[in-house]
Amino acid sequence: MKFELAVTDPGSSARAGVITTDHGTIETPIFMPVGTVASVKGISQKDLKEQVNPDIILGNTYHLYLRPQTEILKKAGGLHKFMNWDRNILTDSGGYQVYSLSERRKIKEEGVRFKSHIDGSYHNFTPENVMEIQRAIGADIIMAFDECTPYPCDYRYAKNSMHRTHRWLDRCITHFEKTPPLYGYSQSLFPIVQGSTFKDLREQSAEYIAAAGAEGNAIGGLSVGEPAEEMYAMTEVVTNILPKEKPRYLMGVGTPINILENIALGVDMFDCVMPTRNARNGMLFTAHGTINIKNKKWEDDFSPIDESGATYVDTYYSKAYVRHLFTVNEMLGKQIATMHNLGFYLWLVREARKHILAGDFATWKNMMVKQMDKRL
Amino acid sequence: MKFELAVTDPGSSARAGVITTDHGTIETPIFMPVGTVASVKGISQKDLKEQVNPDIILGNTYHLYLRPQTEILKKAGGLHKFMNWDRNILTDSGGYQVYSLSERRKIKEEGVRFKSHIDGSYHNFTPENVMEIQRAIGADIIMAFDECTPYPCDYRYAKNSMHRTHRWLDRCITHFEKTPPLYGYSQSLFPIVQGSTFKDLREQSAEYIAAAGAEGNAIGGLSVGEPAEEMYAMTEVVTNILPKEKPRYLMGVGTPINILENIALGVDMFDCVMPTRNARNGMLFTAHGTINIKNKKWEDDFSPIDESGATYVDTYYSKAYVRHLFTVNEMLGKQIATMHNLGFYLWLVREARKHILAGDFATWKNMMVKQMDKRL
Ligand SMILES: [Zn+2]
Ligand SMILES: [Zn+2]
Repeated sequence: MKFELAVTDPGSSARAGVITTDHGTIETPIFMPVGTVASVKGISQKDLKEQVNPDIILGNTYHLYLRPQTEILKKAGGLHKFMNWDRNILTDSGGYQVYSLSERRKIKEEGVRFKSHIDGSYHNFTPENVMEIQRAIGADIIMAFDECTPYPCDYRYAKNSMHRTHRWLDRCITHFEKTPPLYGYSQSLFPIVQGSTFKDLREQSAEYIAAAGAEGNAIGGLSVGEPAEEMYAMTEVVTNILPKEKPRYLMGVGTPINILENIALGVDMFDCVMPTRNARNGMLFTAHGTINIKNKKWEDDFSPIDESGATYVDTYYSKAYVRHLFTVNEMLGKQIATMHNLGFYLWLVREARKHILAGDFATWKNMMVKQMDKRL
Repeated sequence: MKFELAVTDPGSSARAGVITTDHGTIETPIFMPVGTVASVKGISQKDLKEQVNPDIILGNTYHLYLRPQTEILKKAGGLHKFMNWDRNILTDSGGYQVYSLSERRKIKEEGVRFKSHIDGSYHNFTPENVMEIQRAIGADIIMAFDECTPYPCDYRYAKNSMHRTHRWLDRCITHFEKTPPLYGYSQSLFPIVQGSTFKDLREQSAEYIAAAGAEGNAIGGLSVGEPAEEMYAMTEVVTNILPKEKPRYLMGVGTPINILENIALGVDMFDCVMPTRNARNGMLFTAHGTINIKNKKWEDDFSPIDESGATYVDTYYSKAYVRHLFTVNEMLGKQIATMHNLGFYLWLVREARKHILAGDFATWKNMMVKQMDKRL
């Protein structure tokens, strides 16, 4: 993997760069649509490419491990071939999903024992087997096995957990280096900064992670319920420490506003289920605010969904039509809203990149944050 | 509306023709995908055009009347504009849906009183208001208000119902002629032959309907549970009587085999929810038989869904992948299966047309019927 920093914004810490992997280039800042179980919910790979056009998508190790299972992915020649996606893929480490099983998992130094949400069967994730599972899935960027602490989190727990995450990282790196990639292209391992919302822990963790010398670095444990201001404060602490010459990935973030604010703090990569999940509930993000398309007020509004939208659905269908589709619970409503929202998120990061390159990101960002903070 | 009969098959009663309306041409035989509530379930209008490519789709008057409701469709300028479909549309008369409400409707000479399946409110359909609703929906081809008798049906009931359908037809024609089209293009009214599975009633009804001199004629009350042989027998009785120079539409039919057999008996138009509904249940139709894609046997079958399929999904995705999508209940599974099945149905009628034009339809049809009658 290669990362070239093209430009740093004069008015903020925003950066524009290009990541190059064996599956092509990724222009940053980037938003990665979430393809939980080998599908970005509600959109075909073809439409994803042609309409939304992301350079990279995300898969979830926990879900893929349970179904279709590692063996099937190996037989298929990896996730890219299995789902017919020839661009980049990043997989998380399964940590986040396992911890959210709460009553169904037990954390020890060795790893985590958990109960499948599908059939109640018991499984173990360790730093070592999570590396092997991600080798089998074959994502271009894979994540270290970490613990994502909840919010709020007591200081003592956050500190102990952080150090365990650091020890697990060492085991991940050792095992990653011992296991070759399976499908003839390279994979890069990103470690994850933890430390909850404690500045000193975040600093310690960022230094530990920076010292690992990985090809890219991630910030985890944010966007788990803390106020946005705390998230931004932690991001800033961490991006001030992480090496500038490596891409920075803020996991699980967030709203369009969260994304712009974190770009301003020096983050390069994002993922979040929000554009797809909210789409399925009838919430549309636009440059001028959010739309609840189920609202009766759109019943006879025959104007396009979003006249300046980035995908064909934005002008192909009217608000009244999409409102009707949600009212009668037609799948097409979810399909249209999904394409719209993903198109908007990718438009937003591409536009951010343009403004970073043009040198006026900070001004544009402040205008957009204000403009998007509305309900239409 | 214009209908030109291009060729009649020497070895059967199959015909190839072209219907021309204000929304373009329809090459027959044709299969019309069912777009119940202004959406063909699980497929976008764009994919429907580009991948499946039908010259005409169907909408359901009953469903559209309840939601989005006639007033919204009027404000939109009709269903074509509301759903952004610029090719042909046919609407049924609501009769079929109303009768299947069974306990929730009452039939009188004036019309039918029924209870909405949505909110329990009471409504009336009469030959007159069904013409007005269909004027407001604005389909190119609209259907007379009829009673679709169940199977089995007692002779006396079938006979009385048939004569009521005839009386309703006269009222439909009178009212249709009194009401102008609303959106600047013509609409054609098709009457419907009834008579259950009684040969003498079917003959009487076909003669009555033929005498109405409409631009096209339909056969209703079949594919309601009767054995296929009875369906074919009734179709044959009716097509022998209906005028050759008008298109013939067999309502609600059916399996790929049913369609070929009825084409051989002189039917030109079909509609059925089977390709879309079965797709959502994981059943794929192919030229070599049906596939239950949920079956474990496809778990590691990485071959294309249908290597000779008509749409891009057929070679873009593997059986193992689509099986996985159904296992994890991802929307994309239904989307892929829907596009495949509709693509197959439209391929089948286009292929039938080619063989009619080439003069070898009967031989090809017999081969296909045998070949498709398998579970893969
Ligand atoms: Zn430590
Ligand atoms: Zn009669």
